[in-house]
Amino acid sequence: MRKLFMSLMAGLSFCSVYAQSADSAWIKKISDEILRNGKAYENLRHLTKQIGARLAGSSGMVKAENWGLEVMKKSGADQAWLQECMVPHWVRGGTDYAQATYTVPANKTKNMIPQQKGLDVVALGNSNGSGPKGVTAQVLLVNSFDELEAKKDQVKGKIVFYNYRFNDTYVSTFNAYRDAGQYRGQGPSRAAKYGAKAVIVRSMSHAVDNNPHTGATRYDSAFEKIPAVAIGLRDADWLSEQLQKTDVNVTLKTYGKFLPDTIGHNVIGELKGSEFPDQIITVGGHLDSWDNCEGAHDDGAGCVQTMEILRAFKALGYTPKRTIRFVLFANEENGLRGGAKYAEVAAAKGEKHILAIESDAGGFTPRALGFTGSDEQYVKFLSWKELIAPYGCTELVKGGGGADIGPLNRTLKTPMASLNPDTQRYFDIHHARSDVFEAVNKRELELGAVNMAALIYLVDKYGL
Amino acid sequence: MRKLFMSLMAGLSFCSVYAQSADSAWIKKISDEILRNGKAYENLRHLTKQIGARLAGSSGMVKAENWGLEVMKKSGADQAWLQECMVPHWVRGGTDYAQATYTVPANKTKNMIPQQKGLDVVALGNSNGSGPKGVTAQVLLVNSFDELEAKKDQVKGKIVFYNYRFNDTYVSTFNAYRDAGQYRGQGPSRAAKYGAKAVIVRSMSHAVDNNPHTGATRYDSAFEKIPAVAIGLRDADWLSEQLQKTDVNVTLKTYGKFLPDTIGHNVIGELKGSEFPDQIITVGGHLDSWDNCEGAHDDGAGCVQTMEILRAFKALGYTPKRTIRFVLFANEENGLRGGAKYAEVAAAKGEKHILAIESDAGGFTPRALGFTGSDEQYVKFLSWKELIAPYGCTELVKGGGGADIGPLNRTLKTPMASLNPDTQRYFDIHHARSDVFEAVNKRELELGAVNMAALIYLVDKYGL
Repeated sequence: MRKLFMSLMAGLSFCSVYAQSADSAWIKKISDEILRNGKAYENLRHLTKQIGARLAGSSGMVKAENWGLEVMKKSGADQAWLQECMVPHWVRGGTDYAQATYTVPANKTKNMIPQQKGLDVVALGNSNGSGPKGVTAQVLLVNSFDELEAKKDQVKGKIVFYNYRFNDTYVSTFNAYRDAGQYRGQGPSRAAKYGAKAVIVRSMSHAVDNNPHTGATRYDSAFEKIPAVAIGLRDADWLSEQLQKTDVNVTLKTYGKFLPDTIGHNVIGELKGSEFPDQIITVGGHLDSWDNCEGAHDDGAGCVQTMEILRAFKALGYTPKRTIRFVLFANEENGLRGGAKYAEVAAAKGEKHILAIESDAGGFTPRALGFTGSDEQYVKFLSWKELIAPYGCTELVKGGGGADIGPLNRTLKTPMASLNPDTQRYFDIHHARSDVFEAVNKRELELGAVNMAALIYLVDKYGL
Repeated sequence: MRKLFMSLMAGLSFCSVYAQSADSAWIKKISDEILRNGKAYENLRHLTKQIGARLAGSSGMVKAENWGLEVMKKSGADQAWLQECMVPHWVRGGTDYAQATYTVPANKTKNMIPQQKGLDVVALGNSNGSGPKGVTAQVLLVNSFDELEAKKDQVKGKIVFYNYRFNDTYVSTFNAYRDAGQYRGQGPSRAAKYGAKAVIVRSMSHAVDNNPHTGATRYDSAFEKIPAVAIGLRDADWLSEQLQKTDVNVTLKTYGKFLPDTIGHNVIGELKGSEFPDQIITVGGHLDSWDNCEGAHDDGAGCVQTMEILRAFKALGYTPKRTIRFVLFANEENGLRGGAKYAEVAAAKGEKHILAIESDAGGFTPRALGFTGSDEQYVKFLSWKELIAPYGCTELVKGGGGADIGPLNRTLKTPMASLNPDTQRYFDIHHARSDVFEAVNKRELELGAVNMAALIYLVDKYGL
């Protein structure tokens, strides 16, 4: 009996070693195909340089949808289609403007001489503009919400300047973003509550340049929807130093407004499963970007990686057992309507989604895959570590997902994964004019696709 | 007895947990100090923008040595000095020049029309120039040494063009470099053996631009020391395509030569150990760079990281038990005389070196620490993994060192470690004009220093 058991075990172990080595060979093939013949980089060049910015509702987004559909077809999707959803339609409406006025003491006399300085600002997404008359008011510096509360009696009629610093000491920059992000999200309404006329927010970044970083704000309907801008870090430092010495008035002119909701689309390509066509694996990124940049890392990278996985699978003649959906989501930045619609349709059709994976943290060098699912599923996920690690994702970690696939997880309990690239450079360019094609490295972008493709290959083969 | 054992174990385990948590707190302090108050980035700006290129023997290197000594002192070294060594003194001697001449068929007639195209080339380091008369000859394309051998009868009087491709499919780009590097090192002499007049080598890179990458070549004294250049990748592709269609003559003009050996220096700063002053830990990078770039990643980064560790230790009031030497080595690029001198002096003085660690793979985001030592030492090194991983070096791997600390290892059997940053971007800029300050990210640079500092702290505290 013991002999039988031993030989059974040896057989199993042989099978498992054999399977691992076959899997390892397949993943190497995928990697070689992507690193040698990859189209992700040239696709990203087209998306960023020929199409450019593509906020929900913009003509750029319409162009991007049509282009995405064509690339899905060319990459070899069995079928590809646009999935309609209504999207918010916020427009910047003009060129954001900010000028500081202050005084400096004249030489030899006690006269104060007025000085002016332009500030590099960008209106926050979803914010209301001041219109051409602008807002002019004295600036009140607060370094935190606590300080706002302490100074609440001084807020009325002022422009509140939140100078909350992006915390350099977090090694993962996303922790600093989570920490500082509340000032962009809640800052305007919390200042409006005490009668502020407008808000300036220190950009959520530790960049060494002066580019301001936009991003969505969320007004609390209980208070006035006052104009709000983000300011570049050098100007933020200047303004905060100036305010130690003297009063500063700022004139802000912004023009943001919402037009009526309009039609947007998720772009979907599909490879039909040969054995379990009803089991669906979704991989995606979001096609929309902020209007002040090319959206190369956020999230052009995720989109071209998604389509690259499709292209590589087809180029290698890989026939998936399960259905794989390649999705470019609409409207992540200021509404999340694309992700919501995708989950809504999946639920209405009774689809069975076994995994959704998203790349929306930049096209930087891959370091980890994150995973959210049951403990049993996590153990299975972990068992693939040795197969994936050689391609850069040396860590398989608990907790993964993405804004666009979140609704699928909440609605259908679909397990979620994320590509976690290195975070050091992301907030240098996030939502800023510096998020351009030139900031993306070809191989880093491609390796992101390789690591996701490896996971998809394994889930397709073994289920989850 | 069992109870006693259990309580002893519990006590030990408590001590160990306590020690780990104290170490963890210290390493966090170091990290916070470097990420918040770090001077590495501004020091690198000075080194690259105020001093610039600094090949052994150049005036740039002399300026860099003096500057390095000053920064060592300002950073708080107990003592700092220059360690003299003789260095080779190769000079480029002029502006490298290459022009291709070929013919294209005229429209409507059978006449061939001559065409010319400038090629972006850089003479290989240590190579002999052609002088102002230049070399003009027909180009013979070979894609490998095997092809050179097969075509050896055609080589005489030609310019051999090694178009050996940098292998994109290696995930670690250093593997591609090791693979392709032989063409730069041995290519000129292997072609001269068969009578070639000069050599053009495809740059060791997978960059998407056309910048040529220099680096040292090694002539075999048995053959003529013919001129040799590296060519940018786009021009390499053009030349190889052109050679499928028609003959191409190239005129090369280069001016490289060796002047007599001259005086160079290692720059050394030291913190004296309080308990075991005779046990020395060395950390360093190399101060010299190729003459065609700012040497920001190679290896300005390693130098400013080295001095940043010194600065941070002093700023935190850390008193090392062991002596820590911070070394900016001379002449890594084309002679290794600095590293050799450092080991020679250490051996002559009977110094006891317990670890040497080098950063010479770029100032990119840290991923691993490599280690070369005994198995027992490696086990100790591995036991620190959880303490270091939170700062980016999630892998502690076997095999580590650096060109400059190699002689110490060979002479005194000193264990060696290396900072292994992410490799994807390194060969985009390595030895090319694009190795500039702007290619370095502040936080990635700083985190490299953090991870090395953590290892040095642990070796200082616990020995090795």
